[in-house]
Amino acid sequence: MPTLENYLESNATRFEDELCDFVRIASVSADPNRKGEMVRAAQWVAGQLRSLNFTVEIIPTSGNPLVFAQSPHVPDAPTVLVYGHYDVQPAEPLEKWTTPPFEPAKRDGKLFARGATDDKGQVLSHIKSAEAVIKTQGKLPLNMKFLVEGEEEVGSVGLGEFLKSNAEKLGSDCIVISDGSQFAPGIPAINYGLRGIAYYEIHLQGPNRDLHSGSFGGSITNPANALAKILAGLIDEKGRVTIPGFYDDVVPLTDRERRQFAELPFVEQEYFRNVGVEGAVGEEGYTALERRWARPTFDICGLWSGYQGEGAKTVLPATAGAKISFRLVPNQTPEKIAAGLKRKLAELTPPGIQLEFIAHHGGPGVLVSLESPYIEAAARAIEFAFSRRPVFTREGGSIPIVAKFAEHLKVDILLLGWGQEDDNAHSPNEKFSLDDFHKAIKASAKLWEELAKISGEWRVESGE
Amino acid sequence: MPTLENYLESNATRFEDELCDFVRIASVSADPNRKGEMVRAAQWVAGQLRSLNFTVEIIPTSGNPLVFAQSPHVPDAPTVLVYGHYDVQPAEPLEKWTTPPFEPAKRDGKLFARGATDDKGQVLSHIKSAEAVIKTQGKLPLNMKFLVEGEEEVGSVGLGEFLKSNAEKLGSDCIVISDGSQFAPGIPAINYGLRGIAYYEIHLQGPNRDLHSGSFGGSITNPANALAKILAGLIDEKGRVTIPGFYDDVVPLTDRERRQFAELPFVEQEYFRNVGVEGAVGEEGYTALERRWARPTFDICGLWSGYQGEGAKTVLPATAGAKISFRLVPNQTPEKIAAGLKRKLAELTPPGIQLEFIAHHGGPGVLVSLESPYIEAAARAIEFAFSRRPVFTREGGSIPIVAKFAEHLKVDILLLGWGQEDDNAHSPNEKFSLDDFHKAIKASAKLWEELAKISGEWRVESGE
Repeated sequence: MPTLENYLESNATRFEDELCDFVRIASVSADPNRKGEMVRAAQWVAGQLRSLNFTVEIIPTSGNPLVFAQSPHVPDAPTVLVYGHYDVQPAEPLEKWTTPPFEPAKRDGKLFARGATDDKGQVLSHIKSAEAVIKTQGKLPLNMKFLVEGEEEVGSVGLGEFLKSNAEKLGSDCIVISDGSQFAPGIPAINYGLRGIAYYEIHLQGPNRDLHSGSFGGSITNPANALAKILAGLIDEKGRVTIPGFYDDVVPLTDRERRQFAELPFVEQEYFRNVGVEGAVGEEGYTALERRWARPTFDICGLWSGYQGEGAKTVLPATAGAKISFRLVPNQTPEKIAAGLKRKLAELTPPGIQLEFIAHHGGPGVLVSLESPYIEAAARAIEFAFSRRPVFTREGGSIPIVAKFAEHLKVDILLLGWGQEDDNAHSPNEKFSLDDFHKAIKASAKLWEELAKISGEWRVESGE
Repeated sequence: MPTLENYLESNATRFEDELCDFVRIASVSADPNRKGEMVRAAQWVAGQLRSLNFTVEIIPTSGNPLVFAQSPHVPDAPTVLVYGHYDVQPAEPLEKWTTPPFEPAKRDGKLFARGATDDKGQVLSHIKSAEAVIKTQGKLPLNMKFLVEGEEEVGSVGLGEFLKSNAEKLGSDCIVISDGSQFAPGIPAINYGLRGIAYYEIHLQGPNRDLHSGSFGGSITNPANALAKILAGLIDEKGRVTIPGFYDDVVPLTDRERRQFAELPFVEQEYFRNVGVEGAVGEEGYTALERRWARPTFDICGLWSGYQGEGAKTVLPATAGAKISFRLVPNQTPEKIAAGLKRKLAELTPPGIQLEFIAHHGGPGVLVSLESPYIEAAARAIEFAFSRRPVFTREGGSIPIVAKFAEHLKVDILLLGWGQEDDNAHSPNEKFSLDDFHKAIKASAKLWEELAKISGEWRVESGE
């Protein structure tokens, strides 16, 4: 049998050709006219996995089908669940593409096509790595499950329903997801934490109609004034949220994490310059990276009241409203935040104002212990392929499906993004570095070997 | 010669007929197709004054003509300038009118027509009172000037230009304006003060584009959060504006004023109930009436940022903005407020935010001393006609043309509203009580006599 390196090298062109085949399928989940392409993409993935001797099911959902596959059973070995998606974002605006979105084109070592990095190239890296291990070692050293959905770009409704009642079928020791980016070109990363979110809306009703700000101003509580006071009252002078108990459950940053963040090639002034600001305020005592990755926040996402048109209108508005979001970190929960927020809002609401509270979506954060052996296994696998140890990062945003996995499957999740920040994942000229593609296949192949070494004694505590 | 009472009684029907003639002219200044009606209305007023032997000019402006008239000269007597307007609001929505807006109809002792109360009925009361004095006493006891414009409902542009260079022509000892309301039915009022206004707009620019509230939240200053803090910072916990020097020039309420306000038949709980609230916050230490009539304010008139649509969007907005107004009282000036506001805004603006400041319109407040003999003359005249002494009120709003008179003509202004709050001045089914019409004529006739008694020594200090 050939060595892994030899196999990867001699099959590199075919792997690229297969990725081209995959991205030619215009599986745009947002487009109701693409139902045929969705099925073709699911079948294409299923065919890949069947050729590796996996047991494959195409599972119908309320939307697009799930592809679920299991490798031949390996006794006394751990089980890994690989998640990905075969659907892609719409390609519009088409005129902004240098080459057509569904006709893959290679330029400067990159493959340009819709879905190249998000997520077809990354999904295929895991399939091809499994193939490489089988072809060079005769079989996989562990049990693999693949779950590839077709609705990630439109809310994962079908998968969400499936998850609720199929925890056993999806049972595993860890989950591997490659649907994101490295820290920077040449700097691979393991993302071990995501923030959660709690999103609310408040409506303030003052007088029963818009009033003349001259005739009534000063004597009737102005809902816009009240809204400013209420929202300002949710953050103190140190940039901390004032909701009672807000920080009670927050898992603090460890010294190791703070040190690792500080060692990253991240320059605050460059970060600020990139978004056009000269500095920022935030929670006192934390760096910009700590604030965006590992500390909870309060952000006003929308604000409205009174007259927003040209010129001046002397109105004392009847209503005012805001959409507000809190980014949560483990172990905060949207339910507890909502309860504290309601008490705080009641306290801040002045006479003359009726406040209506609306809860939108929410979900907890995710944090994998840096002490997890899965993390260390992934780090070794990445170092093997990329010739440098990965950095350990967290992400300020939420990935709803990851939060759902954490909630329902309760195992460690390895977020190994093989893409780059500038891959234009949701924009014209989406691309994926072919060098990253091949290194990803190599890292994944090594990952299965490393994961297979982990004894069954390790039991996870993540996802709380 | 008949007595005044006899003359008014025997001519009452004709006066009403003439008012009907006046309101039949559809002099809607906002409607460019009504230029002919505008001229007809101006000529109608001019004809009325010419028949009293006044010297009448119809003065062209950039818009609709002014009617200016002077009575035959009376030596050693004071001069009064009566201001009013012959233009009216649009009548739409027409389907809401019980009878057509330009076909006057009498019901329940009221005349229903567009312009009945605003301002044709009130203008005509002064013309008919002059007629009554002339017909019962042979001549007017003082010098009268009439200035009746045709653009009050559209900004008084022509009059504004005229005022700048015709202060001498308009020279007088006091100005009488009847273009408003009594305190309540049966409770006539003299309004001796108006608030001014200073209206600004601020735009906050944070990052150079909308950012993901997850990826960036906490580490980049959110302009909506900053806006809430800035606006909340403009009012302190006692409801006082925090701009440096804001209260320095405020003319305080006198004990007499506070007592008079307190004696008015005004029930705060009814006032609140009428606008649908149970209470209000405001400047500490003042009643609702004092707050709305005689204290300066800060009101947010408009507010916007980020996402205002349905559902949730997790955005850290790039921009936020607000329209804000301050109601001013004598002797505050918009210029001084703007200077202090800019300093305060600079102090409140956090790192990461660029603030743009836009000044909209502004004007000072107006206050006539309650010690003015003109006020007392008007009080006696009103008591003569309405059989009760008027109450002394102020008004929270601004009347731009009154502020302009105060600025350019520097004489006491008597605001003697003959209408009622529920006259539907700018709404369908506008009306004017015929009883109020006749009492107004009688009060005006007495007013000319009372004003004539005032010696030339009194010199005014209002309008600063």
